[in-house]
Amino acid sequence: MTRKPRILVIGGLAAGPSAASKAKRVNPDAEVILIEKTKYISYGICEIPYYITGEYKDKNDLVVYSPDRLQREKNVTVRTQSEAESIDRKNRTVQIKDHYKGVRRKEEYDKLIITTGSTPRLLPFMNEHIKNVFTVKELARAYELNTFLKRNKPKKAVIVGGGYIGLEMAEALRHLDIDVTLIHRHAYPLSRIDEKSGEVLVSALHENGVHFVPEGNVKSIGADPEGNVKTVVTEDGTYDADVVIVAIGVIPNVSLAKDAGLDIGKLGGIKTDQKQRTNDDVIFAAGDCCEVKNLISRRPSYIPLATVASKMAWTAGENAAGGSSVFNGAIRNIALRVFDYEVARVGLMFSEANDAGFNTVTETIEAPSRVMGMPGAARVRVTYITDKTTGKLLGATLLGKDGAVHRGNVLAAMIQMGATIHEISNLDLMYAPPFSPLWDPVLIAANQTLKKL
Amino acid sequence: MTRKPRILVIGGLAAGPSAASKAKRVNPDAEVILIEKTKYISYGICEIPYYITGEYKDKNDLVVYSPDRLQREKNVTVRTQSEAESIDRKNRTVQIKDHYKGVRRKEEYDKLIITTGSTPRLLPFMNEHIKNVFTVKELARAYELNTFLKRNKPKKAVIVGGGYIGLEMAEALRHLDIDVTLIHRHAYPLSRIDEKSGEVLVSALHENGVHFVPEGNVKSIGADPEGNVKTVVTEDGTYDADVVIVAIGVIPNVSLAKDAGLDIGKLGGIKTDQKQRTNDDVIFAAGDCCEVKNLISRRPSYIPLATVASKMAWTAGENAAGGSSVFNGAIRNIALRVFDYEVARVGLMFSEANDAGFNTVTETIEAPSRVMGMPGAARVRVTYITDKTTGKLLGATLLGKDGAVHRGNVLAAMIQMGATIHEISNLDLMYAPPFSPLWDPVLIAANQTLKKL
Repeated sequence: MTRKPRILVIGGLAAGPSAASKAKRVNPDAEVILIEKTKYISYGICEIPYYITGEYKDKNDLVVYSPDRLQREKNVTVRTQSEAESIDRKNRTVQIKDHYKGVRRKEEYDKLIITTGSTPRLLPFMNEHIKNVFTVKELARAYELNTFLKRNKPKKAVIVGGGYIGLEMAEALRHLDIDVTLIHRHAYPLSRIDEKSGEVLVSALHENGVHFVPEGNVKSIGADPEGNVKTVVTEDGTYDADVVIVAIGVIPNVSLAKDAGLDIGKLGGIKTDQKQRTNDDVIFAAGDCCEVKNLISRRPSYIPLATVASKMAWTAGENAAGGSSVFNGAIRNIALRVFDYEVARVGLMFSEANDAGFNTVTETIEAPSRVMGMPGAARVRVTYITDKTTGKLLGATLLGKDGAVHRGNVLAAMIQMGATIHEISNLDLMYAPPFSPLWDPVLIAANQTLKKL
Repeated sequence: MTRKPRILVIGGLAAGPSAASKAKRVNPDAEVILIEKTKYISYGICEIPYYITGEYKDKNDLVVYSPDRLQREKNVTVRTQSEAESIDRKNRTVQIKDHYKGVRRKEEYDKLIITTGSTPRLLPFMNEHIKNVFTVKELARAYELNTFLKRNKPKKAVIVGGGYIGLEMAEALRHLDIDVTLIHRHAYPLSRIDEKSGEVLVSALHENGVHFVPEGNVKSIGADPEGNVKTVVTEDGTYDADVVIVAIGVIPNVSLAKDAGLDIGKLGGIKTDQKQRTNDDVIFAAGDCCEVKNLISRRPSYIPLATVASKMAWTAGENAAGGSSVFNGAIRNIALRVFDYEVARVGLMFSEANDAGFNTVTETIEAPSRVMGMPGAARVRVTYITDKTTGKLLGATLLGKDGAVHRGNVLAAMIQMGATIHEISNLDLMYAPPFSPLWDPVLIAANQTLKKL
């Protein structure tokens, strides 16, 4: 009898544990080993803003699976504080530095899954000598941030970056009664959102005491002699800060893959096929370290979201274990709460659609979320970005104090199915006064768009 | 110059005003006349339970368009208290009895749209001599019921029929602190819902003080010498009642169409093509008086819902005015609130799917509505009814205290697009702790179903 097949997974945050668990489930005879350079695996990054406010109350805090639990419940061997330094594709080994024991060793593999994730993008002048500047990505840093906020009770915060994490952190820090300045490089928060929706978001920020600085280009960060951050300086002004959050996106971690000669795409992520296989037949990759096909533009895209990572991971895990699974791609579907607003940003925005070569038409409507007069009813703003040539919906934003986010999922489903506006206008959506009016806003937006096609 | 084309619409509740408005919009030169036998047009039946509780607060109460407003804003001539008695297809006239003036007259038409709606099904022994027995369908009766409840403050109510109106009325009357007994002819409320979901619903009723009587076959209604209702008698027991609500479905109003020789389907509704045209080229029909194609079974179906009626009405109105619109059909998507539960019943239920000849498999899961630990998170119960042969989703029920109903719309969209469970499992749904966990319940149910295919 030959030895058990050995599947090695590098990286333990989101994709890694999913891929490892799936591989073990598909082939229970395989030895599945997960290595992770930090102490933590399998935690929820998206919960961090709510952990900071105390709103998220789970006994395990942010950790979904502890190494012990993954080992016990999923039969995956977990080795934390183990950093993969290089891959020897010829001999099918990975050199690992064990940070706990301080030794190096080689680990053999039959199949390798790379789930090295991403790293928060930093400002060029950030450095370890300036204290109290945080990114929101790693669990250890989240715990540090939380401790700092509770102990030092900072009065003024500057957040650099108005993407969804920046917006969520703005809300989180306002809940702690901290003065918040949000500096964003574009005119409106959230990447490429339409102008009118952007204006509503900016108003929501102002109403809730967030000072929004549009088109802010951060030039430097100032600190006191002890190294405590004191100011954030843009081309146009200087903003006081006792704490700074930098949330300007992430960069795929591909140096390990690149050094091993694996193909890297134009957007900087690992290139894989639909089976999540790299250009090496026995090496798979999944998660934030990978590029992914955008199902709308049919082009390579970089979509570092846990939802996408998990699906890629299942495919990588299944295929590494000898199965045959396909991950087609994603549309990018982001939802968030910004104070009392629900925001959904689904698929391609107007400028993205134009960049992708579509003949784009947009339409915006406002309509009640429930039967007007019912408790909780509010107006929802819906914007459709449509391909005039095919009549297909390419993207949508939804914004309102009620019923915006889940309607975004209806549109995500329709976009993914390649539905036309005409098909959306024909949808048999429910009508129940506590939840929805006779004509759902999704239908009204479709009917209005039809007039432009 | 010839005279203006004249489009006559018979029936003013839901479909009529929609069809008339649409016809006028499509051909502003047409003379569009709406006739309605009662005093009221265009009101919201679905709001009645919430009007009874006082939860629905709109200055116009239940009326969407008054006759005046429809006339002013949509340029539709409205004639209330005008009952269509017969259609002379050869001479293209309708005989109308004017109940206000007490006279009969003939109205000519070039195109006719029949939107005569439906009538609540009655118990055979209901009669005008027994007072305080109500149906929930007509506005005048709703006002009477409301007045009766406020003035007489009844202590005990019996509701006959556990469909969505019966359930909503049970909640409404409990809000008014009335003892409620709900008698239903099947074991569980809501037509053909799966057993386990049914049990949850029955528990919810009991928790909220509703006495649910399953498999109850009402034999008679008792009254005191003044004719006030006192008891409802089934084969198994006698239930005290100061007020009785009968909500056992509706019957299409087709006598006018039938007498004129228009085709009636096997389910008792008017037969039309996809343009909502009857077997007479110049006569269209829409709304509860019509049968409709079920998009899942591809069979004629009777779906008396305002959502479906409105879409049919637009098609009828547009085509009567010379346009070319198609209404493909519906899937039947019902949502309701039952006390603190959200309930969605989408597409075909298990037994319906079997009756329609599908090779049916079901799967039920329970999963968190939002990230567990976030405020408002609750478990959602999701049941999928799937065609094992094609892998397509045929129907679903969703039940839970949070996030059930809008997820039903995602599934409605997928069912209508003919999506397979595999396609549903690949959906790029959002993940945001205040709204949804990493794996949406919709995805979990799909992944579990895949194991059975």
